[in-house]
Amino acid sequence: MADGVDEAGVIAEIIGLAQEARVPMRKVGRDQLDAVALTDAPQGVIARADAISDTDLRMLAARSPGNRPPFLLVLDGVTDPHNLGAVMRSGLCAGATGVVLGRHRAARLTPSAVKAAAGAVEYLPIATVPGIPAALAVLADAGIWTVGLVPAAPTTLWDLRVATEAVALVLGAEGKGLSRLARQRCDVAVAIPVHPPLDSLNVSAAAALACFEVARRRGMASRPEPMG
Amino acid sequence: MADGVDEAGVIAEIIGLAQEARVPMRKVGRDQLDAVALTDAPQGVIARADAISDTDLRMLAARSPGNRPPFLLVLDGVTDPHNLGAVMRSGLCAGATGVVLGRHRAARLTPSAVKAAAGAVEYLPIATVPGIPAALAVLADAGIWTVGLVPAAPTTLWDLRVATEAVALVLGAEGKGLSRLARQRCDVAVAIPVHPPLDSLNVSAAAALACFEVARRRGMASRPEPMG
Repeated sequence: MADGVDEAGVIAEIIGLAQEARVPMRKVGRDQLDAVALTDAPQGVIARADAISDTDLRMLAARSPGNRPPFLLVLDGVTDPHNLGAVMRSGLCAGATGVVLGRHRAARLTPSAVKAAAGAVEYLPIATVPGIPAALAVLADAGIWTVGLVPAAPTTLWDLRVATEAVALVLGAEGKGLSRLARQRCDVAVAIPVHPPLDSLNVSAAAALACFEVARRRGMASRPEPMG
Repeated sequence: MADGVDEAGVIAEIIGLAQEARVPMRKVGRDQLDAVALTDAPQGVIARADAISDTDLRMLAARSPGNRPPFLLVLDGVTDPHNLGAVMRSGLCAGATGVVLGRHRAARLTPSAVKAAAGAVEYLPIATVPGIPAALAVLADAGIWTVGLVPAAPTTLWDLRVATEAVALVLGAEGKGLSRLARQRCDVAVAIPVHPPLDSLNVSAAAALACFEVARRRGMASRPEPMG
């Protein structure tokens, strides 16, 4: 914590939570804090944490706590960290149980991704895989329906029939969409119809729509969780 | 256009379109181009354009071309330009016909907003108003249902009954949600149920869900537009 930061409001809350969880705190000069910060405008507090650990793909494909059928997000070539974080936030809010990322040509959990995720990276397990098409084959073998978002698909997202079963939503890169091989490996392809003159949604908007369509079909929509 | 920029690909397309539309082009030194650029990483081309002109609120409340019932987005205190642009892109993709922004404590059409909008600011008319609650009263007088997104509302977005009529979706600020007065002025309040542990969606994700719920109810979902 920076020397001289106002210890009221959210800072007081952070101090309280840290004491409760026996997390050691230290005061340092503002210069020293700014020097280790990884974001542009640190607000007087920095936390050091273990790196987010990777989860095995087969673990993600297994039944999740509470015996809910797996609900995965597979990102094929999404390179913008802000989009990665935004997709994880919407996914977790919709009840997703895991994320699959490619190891190459893919966004990483940069500070910008973590900030956009608004806490989701701490809760949503991630499996990093060498290749998305191979990962889709593993998921299919595990009995998970793989659903690709493909603009030209004849079926729309709102006609998706497999939402209540174990499902993985496969989202393509900004601009380019799914790779040919990933598209071929998907069991089902669905489109989100877009009104002209624009011809595509941002990947994080498409992800929000697809994730909440699964949530809606799973009945979450009719019994709202208590919210603040 | 910067001297020495590679005149292939998208640059060739820009040159072709400019010639077709009789838009004068000029080559300048890279330094000169970078000096007038408003974004961080100009890609060798800059366009000068008239400022986006404001539309009167009553015009937005009238029937739109094609006699579609108005489908408006009202942003109450959204201050992040990226979110503003993202909301406009998703809105236009869902068939929205206009946006209402407050003049004070609101995001403006900064370069970052325009970039996130991916073209939507050129198509979606904007009315800037002195106050959101007063604008909601004007819309209600014009026969438009005002629908506030409110986390604690007992009705969910998916139970919204007025989507096929003239409608205005009212979205609140990041973190704070709708102001008390704006919430009181809304005819209907709906919630987007969010799965714990997170308790809220990003405003642009919430906007995408609300806009496409209107689109789905209006039947757009069952007849996809041809897409690239």
